[in-house]
Formats: sequence, structure tokens, C-alpha cells
Amino acid sequence: MAATQEPASLLDHLARVLSGSQHAALRDSVIPALVDAIAGTSRALRDAQHVALAGTANTFGDDQLNVDVLAENLIRDALAACPSVSTASSEEDPIERPAQKQNTEHDSINTAAASSEIYTVAFDPLDGSSIIAPNWTVGTIIGIWQGTTAIRQSPAQRQIASILGIYGPRTTAVIALRIPGQVEATCFEVGISDDSGFNDAEIVRAEVKLSLPPFKTRYFAPANLRAAADDERYMKLVAHYIQNKYTLRYSGGLVPDVVHALVKGHGIYVSPVTSTSKAKLRRLYELCPLALIVECAGGKAVDPASGQNILDKPLEDIDERGGLICGTAEEVDFVVQNLVG
Amino acid sequence: MAATQEPASLLDHLARVLSGSQHAALRDSVIPALVDAIAGTSRALRDAQHVALAGTANTFGDDQLNVDVLAENLIRDALAACPSVSTASSEEDPIERPAQKQNTEHDSINTAAASSEIYTVAFDPLDGSSIIAPNWTVGTIIGIWQGTTAIRQSPAQRQIASILGIYGPRTTAVIALRIPGQVEATCFEVGISDDSGFNDAEIVRAEVKLSLPPFKTRYFAPANLRAAADDERYMKLVAHYIQNKYTLRYSGGLVPDVVHALVKGHGIYVSPVTSTSKAKLRRLYELCPLALIVECAGGKAVDPASGQNILDKPLEDIDERGGLICGTAEEVDFVVQNLVG
Repeated sequence: MAATQEPASLLDHLARVLSGSQHAALRDSVIPALVDAIAGTSRALRDAQHVALAGTANTFGDDQLNVDVLAENLIRDALAACPSVSTASSEEDPIERPAQKQNTEHDSINTAAASSEIYTVAFDPLDGSSIIAPNWTVGTIIGIWQGTTAIRQSPAQRQIASILGIYGPRTTAVIALRIPGQVEATCFEVGISDDSGFNDAEIVRAEVKLSLPPFKTRYFAPANLRAAADDERYMKLVAHYIQNKYTLRYSGGLVPDVVHALVKGHGIYVSPVTSTSKAKLRRLYELCPLALIVECAGGKAVDPASGQNILDKPLEDIDERGGLICGTAEEVDFVVQNLVG
Repeated sequence: MAATQEPASLLDHLARVLSGSQHAALRDSVIPALVDAIAGTSRALRDAQHVALAGTANTFGDDQLNVDVLAENLIRDALAACPSVSTASSEEDPIERPAQKQNTEHDSINTAAASSEIYTVAFDPLDGSSIIAPNWTVGTIIGIWQGTTAIRQSPAQRQIASILGIYGPRTTAVIALRIPGQVEATCFEVGISDDSGFNDAEIVRAEVKLSLPPFKTRYFAPANLRAAADDERYMKLVAHYIQNKYTLRYSGGLVPDVVHALVKGHGIYVSPVTSTSKAKLRRLYELCPLALIVECAGGKAVDPASGQNILDKPLEDIDERGGLICGTAEEVDFVVQNLVG
């Protein structure tokens, strides 16, 4: 039997993977603030019993505040407390704006502190609105870019970190880091206490890695399955998974569906774009952060329109959208062969 | 706009639906104790970060205690505090045993108090073990029967209440009551605070009811989809849902999958039994409690082997198993026509 190991704190783990002063603000300020915002979002969700009255009555507490807006505000406030974050935009407010509150007494300090490290953060505060009412797991998606903007930048070069917050029976996060020439790709899973946030956050799995073949169980998550009604290739692909006895797991939440593959060590997520179904996932707020996570875990994330890696194409527009094929590399290759072109 | 209503407490709601003295113990002792056990299970899950190390390392905290066992113990302790509960059994320990701890100083009190109302409780403490590691929503399933045993009893007549605990971003419960000749079928949704349990539990939805046609969105949850590889009828049924553009939602957790239909107002859950896939859902711990919930919400729950209502067949054996077709009545009828016989 393996000896019981004391769990590592996120603090200690970050000190190891982001050692030195080059990314001190990312390590000591940005990631801690975002993990605290995830803990805050989790607390808000736990108290939001009346979101169960779904649809237009998707309200939160006495203030009739939407939980999406509440998560948005928690993350915005977290970023405003990080002098190194110059720019922020989100799926709820998709315009790049200064992350710092203007005209405060701290302006001069912020400018000074931000001079060595400057980040742009793009996020989807609460993904999976359709499954909040039935109390299924939902998530937050955050991408961290070097520089003052994400627009017309290369995701592979400039998006250097991403964080998924997972709100389920527990609160967890999956964090990926890859800083070209400086920090090698790494992906790890964090357990978060809703009450203490970053301070007590601990490493649940120091290395999240998709398995190599042979696979004990193969999982598939066919998004937008209605599209298979009008697309013979997608229908054939789904039949292939069934005939080959893949296990179906599809919650309809992008974060839990992708995280399922990472935690199980195998999975293929397919959200195709067909003649009748438009691309609907946002590159900046959903696809790029997820693609970094999947690549850092040893998988692939590909655009079904081109077969190209999601991260290999510069972001042209803040509103750009696409489909997604991601997960275990050999499974992604199979889908590209059978669905793309 | 509708006026904002003060949410009703579960306490007040139970006083209305279980008025009078005939079910005083059920109302004042059994349901409150079980709701507290659900809150306790939720707290345990939130702290169980290392269940994320799935598989054999599915351990809980320093004591290496499995979360299933922890939930089991919380419910057993809750029942032991209810003098009216004479008998308990569970998916973890499927033998009917006295629910009360023997040889305590309270024995004489217990016996006296239990004389007017006597219940047997059958439960699955934590359903969905395969999706605990990825932090997806899981649940507890509880059936409450009149009398000292569930064996060789008619579920329709003797199983008078069931409770589903749902552990997701929030903690919720769905409770159904139907006491032949005494209490009309009712199903309601409860929001539970992990810290205060029953005391602060409030009614999120006083009447959980599946919708009548026309349906805005139709949902399907095809369990054990691998079975379609060897069963042409199941494959055709799945193709029918895709061709007719049903929305797929399938987490693989029985509780979240059934609750999804209840909360959305539409859904069809199909777990067939075929030549190559055995019946694996337990009638006492899973099928009967779920069937009562679905029927009280206006739906149907049918055995795919016979097409018969789950609750219409007496429970012959504590280990009896079966498949499940449940949800919106007209959808269940369609599956029976196409899959049964």
C-alpha cells in the first residue's frame, strides 16, 4: 500500500510550477484572486435555491439578481484587485475594457506594479445555464493572456493559463499553465473550500493527464446531437460509438463534459458545425481556455470546420465562434477523419 | 408581474399536506431526520476532495472512510432517532434489520411511540459512484413503507413516501407522498441549506408536475446505450429521438437524470434490459422510490421486461432487479410500444 501523503497546498504547488519573479503577479495575485472568486461563486450558487424556478424567474435572492451576473461581478472585482490585470472581457459583457476601476487613489500604484507583468483575462462566468435549474454541475471558464489584449493575438503564444471552476457536490478547479519558453505545459486539479477559497485550496491531482491506450472504458459526449438528424456523417459517428460500446456521458455543460474526460483519463467531446446547426461556442470565452486545458493534459482540441488546432489560429474578433472536437488525441484524430472536410 | 412570494418552509408545507395526527411521526420525525441526513451527506461530500482520486483510492479524509459508507451511517443514525421506524435496509447492506439500536434505555419509549405509526425505510445512500470523481451531481434515494417490512408487500399500497436528495451546486430534495385513502399524490421540491438542514429547508416548488403537450423541448436520457449495439429496437428508438430532434441529457446518475425531467417538465429515461445487458437497477432501493416520485409528478414508470407499472408488482425479493422506462406519460407509452414484448 502506498503511504498516505499529506495533500499539497495550491500555494506551495504554484510556488513550484511558477517559481522566480517573472510570474510573481500571476502566482501571488491573479490566480489566488480568481480561485477566491470561484469559491465566492460556489457560495452564491449554494444559496441560490430559487434559480430552480427556471426560465424568466431565474432570480437570485431578494435582489432578483441573476447568478450569472453575480459570478460576473465576483470575477470583475477579483480582477480589479490585481494590478497586473490591465484588460478584461466576458461572455456576459464581450468588450475588452480596463480591468482596474478608474480614478481611484491606487492608480499610480497599479500602474507601477503592472509594469513588469501585464495580463488580459477573458471569462465565461457561469457556463451551463440550461442545467442550473435541475441542479446539475456547472462551471466557470477563464483564460489568461499575456499583454493588454487578446484580439489578433496567437492563442498558442499569448494565452498562458486557464482555469475551470467546477461547481458540483464539491467545488474544484482545473488549472493549466503553459508559458512558451518559460513554463512547460502542466495541468492540475484543485479542491476548493467554499469558505476559505485560495488559502485552504489543495492539490487533488498534481498532474491531470489523459491516459494512453489501451483504455479500460471509452467515453463519448456528443453535443448538439440534434444536428445528426441532418448530417449523415455525425449520425454515423454516433452509431460508431454505440456499436463499439463507448459509454455515454453528456450533461450538456461544457465544463463538466470536458472535465469528465480529464478525470476519467479518456473521452471524446464532439460539438460539430453542420449545414443546419451554427457554430455557437465562443472562441475567446470557451474554446481557447478549454483547448489549453485539454492540450496541457495531453489531449487535442480541434476546430471541426477546419480540422486545425483551436489554438493555432489567431483570434480575429471577440465574437468569433466555432464547434469543438476535443479529448483523447487518437479519438480526436478519428473524428477529424470522419467528420471534417 | 407576479408578486414576490415569501418562500414556504418545508415545516409549514408538511403541516399542510400531512395534517392531523395519523402521520404525525412521518411529518415531525421521519422526514425531518432524513432531510437532516441529506444535509449531512452534502457536507461530507463537500469536504471529500480526495474522492476525486477515483477508483480504489475512493477514500474520504484521514479515516479512509468511503463517502458511500458515510452517507449510509448518516441515514442509519437518522432512522435510529425515529421511534416509528422499525426496519431499515439499504443498497449497501441489503438485509432488513431493526432500525432502532437495541438494548438502549429508550426501548420502552420507542415501542410505545411506534405503536400507532410503523415504517420501513429502504434507501440507496449515494447513487452515482462513477460520477463522483469528475464532480458531477449525485443523489440519495429513499423509500418509506408502511409496516414492518417491504418484502412481499405491494409497492403501490405500502410505499407511501419517497425522497430524492440531489447533491449539485446546491442541495435540493424532491419528495413525493401518496397514502392510499388518506393523502393524495403530491410531489414537491425542497431547497436545503447544508448547515441548518430541515430547520431552514424551504419549498422551491410546491408542485412538481410533468407538463402536458405541446412540449417546447423534448429531452431523452438513454441509459446503458451500449446495449443498443446488440438490440436493434433500442438502436431504432435512439435514432427516432435524434431524427425528431430531442435534446440529449444523460449524466449516468439515476437521480439527476430523473430529476432533470421533473424540473424541465419533460423527459424520457430509458434503461432497457436486453439479451446482452442484464437488469441492474434494484427495485427496492432505486426503482420503487423513483417510480413513486415520477407517478406523483404525473408521469409513468414502467418495467421494460413486462410493460407493467413498476409499482403494480409486489416486491418478491430484496435483491430483485429490473430496467426502467420513466418520465412523461406519452413518451413512456411510445417506448413500451417500440421496445417491450
